[in-house]
Amino acid sequence: MQFHLNGFVPGDPEIADPAERYPASGAQGSVPAEVDVLIVGCGPAGLTLATQLSAFPDIKTCIVEQKPGRMLRGQADGVACRTVEMFHAFGFSERVLKEACWINETTFWKPDEKQPANVVRNGWIKDVEEGLSEFPHVVLNQARVHDFYLDTMRRSASKLEPHYARRLVSVQPAKAEGQNEPPRATVTLERLDPGHEGQTETVKARYVVGCDGARSNVRTSIGRELHGDSANHAWGVMDVLAVTDFPDIRCKCLIQSAHEGNILIIPREGGYLARFYVELTKLDSGERVSSRNITLEELIAKAQRIMHPYKLDAKEVPWWSVYEIGQRLTDKFDDVPEQETATRLPSVFIAGDACHTHSPKAGQGMNVSMQDAFNLGWKLISVLQGRCPPTLLHTYSAERRAIAKELIDFDREWSDMLASTHGEGSGADPATTQSYFIKHGRYTAGTATHYGPSLLTGSDSHQHLAKGFVVGTRFHSAPVMRLADAKPVQLGHVGKADGRFRIYAFAGTDDPTASGSALHRLCDFLKNSPDSPVRKYTRDDEDIDAVIDVRAVFQQAHRKLAIEAMPALLLPQKGRYGLHDYEKMFCADSRDGHDIFDMRVIDRKAGCMVVVRPDQYVAQVLPLDGFKELASYFDGFMLPQAKGGARRAAENAAA
Amino acid sequence: MQFHLNGFVPGDPEIADPAERYPASGAQGSVPAEVDVLIVGCGPAGLTLATQLSAFPDIKTCIVEQKPGRMLRGQADGVACRTVEMFHAFGFSERVLKEACWINETTFWKPDEKQPANVVRNGWIKDVEEGLSEFPHVVLNQARVHDFYLDTMRRSASKLEPHYARRLVSVQPAKAEGQNEPPRATVTLERLDPGHEGQTETVKARYVVGCDGARSNVRTSIGRELHGDSANHAWGVMDVLAVTDFPDIRCKCLIQSAHEGNILIIPREGGYLARFYVELTKLDSGERVSSRNITLEELIAKAQRIMHPYKLDAKEVPWWSVYEIGQRLTDKFDDVPEQETATRLPSVFIAGDACHTHSPKAGQGMNVSMQDAFNLGWKLISVLQGRCPPTLLHTYSAERRAIAKELIDFDREWSDMLASTHGEGSGADPATTQSYFIKHGRYTAGTATHYGPSLLTGSDSHQHLAKGFVVGTRFHSAPVMRLADAKPVQLGHVGKADGRFRIYAFAGTDDPTASGSALHRLCDFLKNSPDSPVRKYTRDDEDIDAVIDVRAVFQQAHRKLAIEAMPALLLPQKGRYGLHDYEKMFCADSRDGHDIFDMRVIDRKAGCMVVVRPDQYVAQVLPLDGFKELASYFDGFMLPQAKGGARRAAENAAA
Repeated sequence: MQFHLNGFVPGDPEIADPAERYPASGAQGSVPAEVDVLIVGCGPAGLTLATQLSAFPDIKTCIVEQKPGRMLRGQADGVACRTVEMFHAFGFSERVLKEACWINETTFWKPDEKQPANVVRNGWIKDVEEGLSEFPHVVLNQARVHDFYLDTMRRSASKLEPHYARRLVSVQPAKAEGQNEPPRATVTLERLDPGHEGQTETVKARYVVGCDGARSNVRTSIGRELHGDSANHAWGVMDVLAVTDFPDIRCKCLIQSAHEGNILIIPREGGYLARFYVELTKLDSGERVSSRNITLEELIAKAQRIMHPYKLDAKEVPWWSVYEIGQRLTDKFDDVPEQETATRLPSVFIAGDACHTHSPKAGQGMNVSMQDAFNLGWKLISVLQGRCPPTLLHTYSAERRAIAKELIDFDREWSDMLASTHGEGSGADPATTQSYFIKHGRYTAGTATHYGPSLLTGSDSHQHLAKGFVVGTRFHSAPVMRLADAKPVQLGHVGKADGRFRIYAFAGTDDPTASGSALHRLCDFLKNSPDSPVRKYTRDDEDIDAVIDVRAVFQQAHRKLAIEAMPALLLPQKGRYGLHDYEKMFCADSRDGHDIFDMRVIDRKAGCMVVVRPDQYVAQVLPLDGFKELASYFDGFMLPQAKGGARRAAENAAA
Repeated sequence: MQFHLNGFVPGDPEIADPAERYPASGAQGSVPAEVDVLIVGCGPAGLTLATQLSAFPDIKTCIVEQKPGRMLRGQADGVACRTVEMFHAFGFSERVLKEACWINETTFWKPDEKQPANVVRNGWIKDVEEGLSEFPHVVLNQARVHDFYLDTMRRSASKLEPHYARRLVSVQPAKAEGQNEPPRATVTLERLDPGHEGQTETVKARYVVGCDGARSNVRTSIGRELHGDSANHAWGVMDVLAVTDFPDIRCKCLIQSAHEGNILIIPREGGYLARFYVELTKLDSGERVSSRNITLEELIAKAQRIMHPYKLDAKEVPWWSVYEIGQRLTDKFDDVPEQETATRLPSVFIAGDACHTHSPKAGQGMNVSMQDAFNLGWKLISVLQGRCPPTLLHTYSAERRAIAKELIDFDREWSDMLASTHGEGSGADPATTQSYFIKHGRYTAGTATHYGPSLLTGSDSHQHLAKGFVVGTRFHSAPVMRLADAKPVQLGHVGKADGRFRIYAFAGTDDPTASGSALHRLCDFLKNSPDSPVRKYTRDDEDIDAVIDVRAVFQQAHRKLAIEAMPALLLPQKGRYGLHDYEKMFCADSRDGHDIFDMRVIDRKAGCMVVVRPDQYVAQVLPLDGFKELASYFDGFMLPQAKGGARRAAENAAA
């Protein structure tokens, strides 16, 4: 898709009339007096969480934002492979893939040895290593990512829309107000919208989530701070429509000049726009870049000097900013002090920039923030639906703070490397920078996230059964063929953002249709045993796959397998009519010469089960007969659902 | 995507609330008094044409429909590979691919030799041969195809919406009403909408297109008839949500029973729905099936008997119908009698079922109808914009009637084969049916369409330069890599439904960056020669690629090619800022072991040019230095645009 040719226009480029490209958004009227979850802030973290919750109409969610309406331009643009995987789970990856700019290669430029005032191309690498994800690394205006979330929320069962123009005044800690009432925090908001300026609203919320950015008021309200330092490298960033003879303008490039500093170029959606990160100047200790009053003209002139001998004629700059680099992190992502975790339950959380801030140049900010929310979302859902005890919520801060710490450390190193000695960076030579970039490719793609062993993440004791599904990392999809209709699909794409756990049973070499096969025995256990987590944690009135969704993958070619001889659990009858669900079984697709068993190094003889969390992380790799370990995993954090349980669970949830 | 589990719900399944799944559509108020094009009928043909025209706000289009609003269920569902290619050009293929059911395999069932009352699987084939198209064969409710078109129209520059509840009363032939006025037909409509019943509206239209189905009033108004016969095979069709133990319910299957007749099963979108075509009974000569008063219960009972020993428990039937098979065709698709084509210009056209009717079981009806309109659309645009003389419009009937004739012949043969001897068909044995099906795979995929030599389609005299781009057939896409950003793309996907011609220049083995190379010389000719069609047919105020879009494909790997040394025509400056368009150059992508030069059998040494029509059909294969032939091709049907031509051409168009 090509757009922005005649100037940047915000909103959906597939709508011809610019005035209709971003429909009015925002809920009318007052915020509700009482909710299950109040989200503060409509950035990537807040919208990820709100969108996930919006699919559950039994959970009352409200999202507020201080700004008067939706974002239209600027800020983040990097969308890592891992994030596109998550977008697929939310159902809008195809829209992102169509509209975004794909980053396919990164090129490196350095001073010409003969004429150091000129830059020359020094290297060329594939941006993402082959096979790292089924999705590419793309870039797209953060505003459009917001739009996709807003769209999905509005189409959801809850028809959720943000309440804009709400300033957070205060958060009072949760307290129980009646015998059968769950504790609720009290949040005070001030309206900023015309006609309602200064009006105060009060919301009681079981959970409050602060996604309100680096200056988070929610964070302040729970007494947490960002710690770290603001380095004295100043940078400018601009989105430019430019005429240039620089040949790599449509690739991601790092240009290191001899004496003028460095530039990072990110090509952007629509085929004409590009983002420039331009190294500006060294600041004094503690100085803020805003004090320098740097102009856009200075920023452009600096870029021109760095790119010499190439020309840059900036025709339009729809967005620009200057900033100083800093890496800061808060101690904990909820309101429970470390020493009180055994005795107190969290009710206020923070996510995204409210917890961690760093430089934008590794393209990580938006991605890590959204993953924070994706981690928290299913946990809130599980607790609010009475499926898990609220102690589960402690795992959010534990898991995500560790990830944020890694991010901060990575960013400190990478930012230092990208700053020239001139800007008091390390002035790493181009070869070092290039090899560092390659080495950290998995990290920047978002696929290096690795949760340590915990309540939710098993040990590696059975890892040898499927070395390619590393416990604690995201379930790495691979191509398979659906048994019932021979459709080639990605196995990971069955994982939607629906709060469900998934068990992928990879059958061994024995005939899966034989009643004595390991697969049949596993399915019998799951369907019939009183110890089966599928039975224990699913209510009577729910489809059998409502909580734990079991899928099987066979090694045999699909024409050799009789669907009618498969265990009933894999052809479940669902819904009001008891229709069969034909999408639980898959077989290996070896058309490319290697199938999923090869690609993920699965023990072909024994097979295995892979348990995947609702946020797509591998929780367990177990043998197909690991019934006890499987049961004990779910028993660790789930609440049994009583018979006739629909009403009961709903009552528990309300209590 | 899975949906319809708890019953069929019309509209967009990604919207949770059924009440919001199909927004109100339809223009308010009266139809305009004067238009360029009046389309009668909101079926697949009418909507394809309307959507194509809607991208051009300088063309005034109106589309009317007798029904009170959008279609919600039923009728056609087959979407051939070729049609998905066209949907890509309209910009919504990704939505269709996401929501539709993919037909991957077809299975064949026959009577069990030992127990002939039972059916058994006899064979299994891939539904579409490997490499036939980059898109799959899919099925989707016709109503949803309409929705995608309606959506695209509404988002277009014209914001076009149908006027529903309009019955066509009459069409008066075109006549000129003033000296500088173009001739216009007069169309009388009757309003059927509440509050306006019986009101008459009159529209003057330069062109009227009847897409009003088998009983077309537009066809009648130009004195044309459908000729052919109604065969005496009666069939029933139903969309069913059923519980069954038939194992191939998610594949396309043909079941031929020993004594009960045949069934064709088409699995449908959402994972639960399936369409059954059920052979019912033999009719007497001239008898209509409606006279038999066949009930849904009879239809289901018949299906159950044919499928024996498998069970079919129909839980919900959202749509069903009975019909008799017939193949009928009209003589000509416009209002000009054959003998008057030299002296008269067409102003009324018919398309789709108004021209040809046949059985639904080859899944061709909707597809061929849309291709009728896609053929006509760009021709109307070119004439109305003053780019081509109105004589071009004669080619519509000439080209599409030949295709319709092939369809009718094919359908007669295939329908006969699908009817058992019992139903007085040929009762072809399963092996014969299966091999016929395979043999005609390209036909049913929609890729066998082959226009003969004409004004618009060249000869095969240079076909040896690119044997895989057969002159007269659709441009068969293949993977390439975009030079500027190394993005893997499908070359054919640059072809949008924008009314533009495209020239793909495949460079030979010489260095394309050398100024003496064949590619450089071609680009020089196109950019600078007064004989260049690019110069002659593009107005001064338009971008250089506005009428003829030139793209180049190189054999070298992208890292070996310097973009900055390429001909300026391939890095054109466009729009108000003169920004470079970086998407004109591609290189071979040989990651799968064979590149586009291999796949399409292009002469690597010499290279070649492939000229592609706005409807994606190959018009010419020429040597890279075939300047004269290239110029003469365009000179055959295009009007030179004078200098300062924007105004002039607009005046011509209005005149």
